[in-house]
This record gives sequence, C-alpha cells and structure tokens, in this order.
Amino acid sequence: MTARNFAFLTRLADAAGTVILPHFRSALAADNKAGHGAYDPVTVADRGAEQTIRAMIAAAFPEDGIYGEEFGIERADADHVWIIDPIDGTRAFLAGLPLWGVLVGLVSHGKPTLGMMAQPYTGELFVGDGGSAHFHKDGSTHTLHSRKGRPLSEALMMSTSPRLFKASTGDLEAFERVAGAARDVRFGGDCYAYAMVAAGNVDIVVEAGLQPYDIAGLVPIIEGAGGVVTTWDGGPAHNGGRIVAAGSPELHAEALKLLVA
Amino acid sequence: MTARNFAFLTRLADAAGTVILPHFRSALAADNKAGHGAYDPVTVADRGAEQTIRAMIAAAFPEDGIYGEEFGIERADADHVWIIDPIDGTRAFLAGLPLWGVLVGLVSHGKPTLGMMAQPYTGELFVGDGGSAHFHKDGSTHTLHSRKGRPLSEALMMSTSPRLFKASTGDLEAFERVAGAARDVRFGGDCYAYAMVAAGNVDIVVEAGLQPYDIAGLVPIIEGAGGVVTTWDGGPAHNGGRIVAAGSPELHAEALKLLVA
Repeated sequence: MTARNFAFLTRLADAAGTVILPHFRSALAADNKAGHGAYDPVTVADRGAEQTIRAMIAAAFPEDGIYGEEFGIERADADHVWIIDPIDGTRAFLAGLPLWGVLVGLVSHGKPTLGMMAQPYTGELFVGDGGSAHFHKDGSTHTLHSRKGRPLSEALMMSTSPRLFKASTGDLEAFERVAGAARDVRFGGDCYAYAMVAAGNVDIVVEAGLQPYDIAGLVPIIEGAGGVVTTWDGGPAHNGGRIVAAGSPELHAEALKLLVA
Repeated sequence: MTARNFAFLTRLADAAGTVILPHFRSALAADNKAGHGAYDPVTVADRGAEQTIRAMIAAAFPEDGIYGEEFGIERADADHVWIIDPIDGTRAFLAGLPLWGVLVGLVSHGKPTLGMMAQPYTGELFVGDGGSAHFHKDGSTHTLHSRKGRPLSEALMMSTSPRLFKASTGDLEAFERVAGAARDVRFGGDCYAYAMVAAGNVDIVVEAGLQPYDIAGLVPIIEGAGGVVTTWDGGPAHNGGRIVAAGSPELHAEALKLLVA
C-alpha cells in the first residue's frame, strides 16, 4: 500500500525528472527542438511534470488536496494537501543552470510534514519530514545537518536576486540591513539555496514575494536538518511571502531583528 | 607523444576533479573534515588542483610557461603559456553550488588557442579552440553553438554579482545601462555563465575586475561556439579586466555601445 513518505516522494522525483530533462538545454540536443516553431521548453516541461505528479498523487491518495503552480487547487479543505512547483527557478532553467528544482510539499492538518527538492540534471534529491532530512545521490544517502554557531557577521547569505525586493515597501532596505551585516552575499539560488542551508553550506537565505509552492516543500527539509524558516515577522513559512531561512535558531533571531527594525 | 589538444585538456580535467571533489560539500561527507581544526576545503582543493595541473603540464611540455592563480608565473616569455584557475568561483564552491569550474587556457604566441571549463561535480566538460567548441558529459559529445538573432531587448543576461561594479568609476552605471536594456538579468554565474553563452542558453555576460585566469580558458570556448568576447572597449579579453561576452557579433556591438556611452 502506498504511504505518504520518502519512498513516494522519490517516485515523484524520478517521474518528474523523466518528463523535464529532455527539455533542459534542448538547444544542445541532437534534435534541436528550439528551431521548430513555438516550442517553449520550460513551459512544456513545467506543465508536463505537474500533470505527471498530480496524476501520481491522485492515483495513490484520491482524497488528498492538490495545489500546483500550473494547474491550481483541488480539494483545498482536505486533511492532506500536496503543494507542487514542478520547476522552481524557471529562469535558472532557461539559463541552463542546474539550480532549478522540483518541489513537492505535503501539508497535513495545516502543517508542513513532508517535503522534497529534486534536481534531476545532477541526480540530487533532498527530502525531509521536519524531524530529519536526507540527501540522496548516485545510490548513497547522507543525513542533512544545517550549520550552527555562525553569527551573522560570519554567515554566508544567499538570495535569488536583489531585484526581488521593492524599495517602496522598505523590503529592499530590510534586506540590505541583513546583507550588510553578513560576511558574504551570493545571488542566484532559487530553491537550491534553501537546500544548501539544510546541507550546512549556506547559513541564511532572505527573500520576498514567494508563493506557497515556492517554499512549502522546503520547510520540512530545512526544519528536519535543524534550521529555522519563517516569514520575516516570525510566522509560518509555508504560505509564502517574505521568507527567512537560517541554519540555527540564533542566526534566525539575529536576522529577524534586523528585518523588522 | 602528448600534444596540446582536447585530449590533454580532458586528462587535466579528470585529474583536477579527482583532487577537488573530496573537498566539495565536505560537511556532507561521512568523515566530517570540517570539524577537525583549521581545515579550509576550498583552499586545500584549489592548491591541490593547481599543483596537479602544473605538474602534468610541466611533465608534458617542460618548455611551456605556466600562470596559475595560486602559484604564480613561470616562463612568462615562452611561446606557449598555460593559464590556470583551479577553482573559478570559490564562493559558489563554498555555497555548495555546482557552478564553479576548473579553467585552463593556452595562450600561444600571445593568442588564446585552446581552453577548457570543467565542472567535476556534474561531470561536465566544455572545450574550445576558437574554431569549434564541444561539450562532453557521460560519454556523449555535443557541438556548442552560441545563440544568434537576439537583440539586447530579447537577451538573457548574466553577471556574477551587481557588487562587481564600482559606482565611483562609472562601471556600475555602464552595467546598469546594459542590464536595463536586456530582457532579463540573472546573477550568480562565475565561469558557468560564459559556458552557457557558448551553449546557447545565455545571450550575454557583463563583468568587471576579472583576472587573466578568470577568462583566458573561456575565450576559445566562446569564440569556438560562434560568440564574441572582449574587454568593454573592444580589446582582447584574455588579459582580464572589464569583460563582455555575447552569443553574436551584433549583440556584442549593441552592448559595447552602451558600455562606453
């Protein structure tokens, strides 16, 4: 019998990768599809992967709700709702960078309980359930532990782009307060940056304007690895908005103070 | 007999990858070296890879010059000078992102004639000789062609960080003129962004403050794929400085006008 667990997430990741990969860097493929009319690789891959994931969830758990970026919400009031971003980081995908990911999260009775980020091109899979988190590649598995003991002055920070933040709302100023206090800031991460918080490589990610499907699948991975992820005002992260993820509670608290200053 | 060709570059890439990979994301490794004293993974990997590459070049071509980021210049006036950046993108390396690369370029009689960018974690190798360029992964090979026919208004642009550019010199303003005219700008690329110009995924890269070893190995790949790479004032790129790489001569000319405006 199918259960809502890591094994099921792994099957979703494998299926999504099979659908998406033929369209990644398709200009390099022997059969250059980019030359044939209105072919839009990222849209074709995005929609195909979400349809595949939705069909697999519907077959296994017909009573569950589904909320996907491309095809909207079904059964939003179900006990268990799956939240899907078939390709998070479509701009990375278009640029040919292996930093996009397939995000799937499960919210049960209003709480994120299971999540995955798959990077099919590199064959990487990050999964978590809030209590633990794991990394799979080439048949080997590692437990994920976020990095501890780094104050902001020693922290490696990431954010997808400084252009995420509006100056008019004060968001840009808030971001700059944290960025200015960090040891180093690196741009261009999308979901991959959050996975690197869980893996202990990146200490903190600060972003704004996220949708629920951009972050819900990542919450159980970050929390399972020992990190903390909330909105800038400390609320639950899985509904999206302005998000801060940190490797340790201390660093998270330090950033929160600067964000709401 | 060993020749200065793609086969030799492939051997350098394989050897460098063997030295570097044990130190990439070493926090994830079973034997957590990060916990043992002053271990600095990127420095150990960087120096080890350059020593390996230098030793292989010296054994094969004892009369050639070598210029590496970590160990400096030997025989700078030789007919053939190898230019090495063992890990370009050390900040990407530290963040756990697979966007760093091993760069090796050959400058013969003052001109870049051969180059490689290897990404050992993804198993990718980009090589070029100015006349052609190729991509190798998992035993398959593709010819690289940069993307043509995109004016700046339709172009996907990349740059490692807006913080590369100084406002005091006018460089930031020049960068913003090009970025403001492009369809989209993505940050966080290092050498990988240039490889994506050669692969036809990214249309243009604009950067400043590059060292010769940051770009010399990439010039024959970009040119071999049909792209153009120069300094902002149209001079040769392989000595570093302020660099613009474009998929087509037309796009390159359009950007140059805005950069020197």
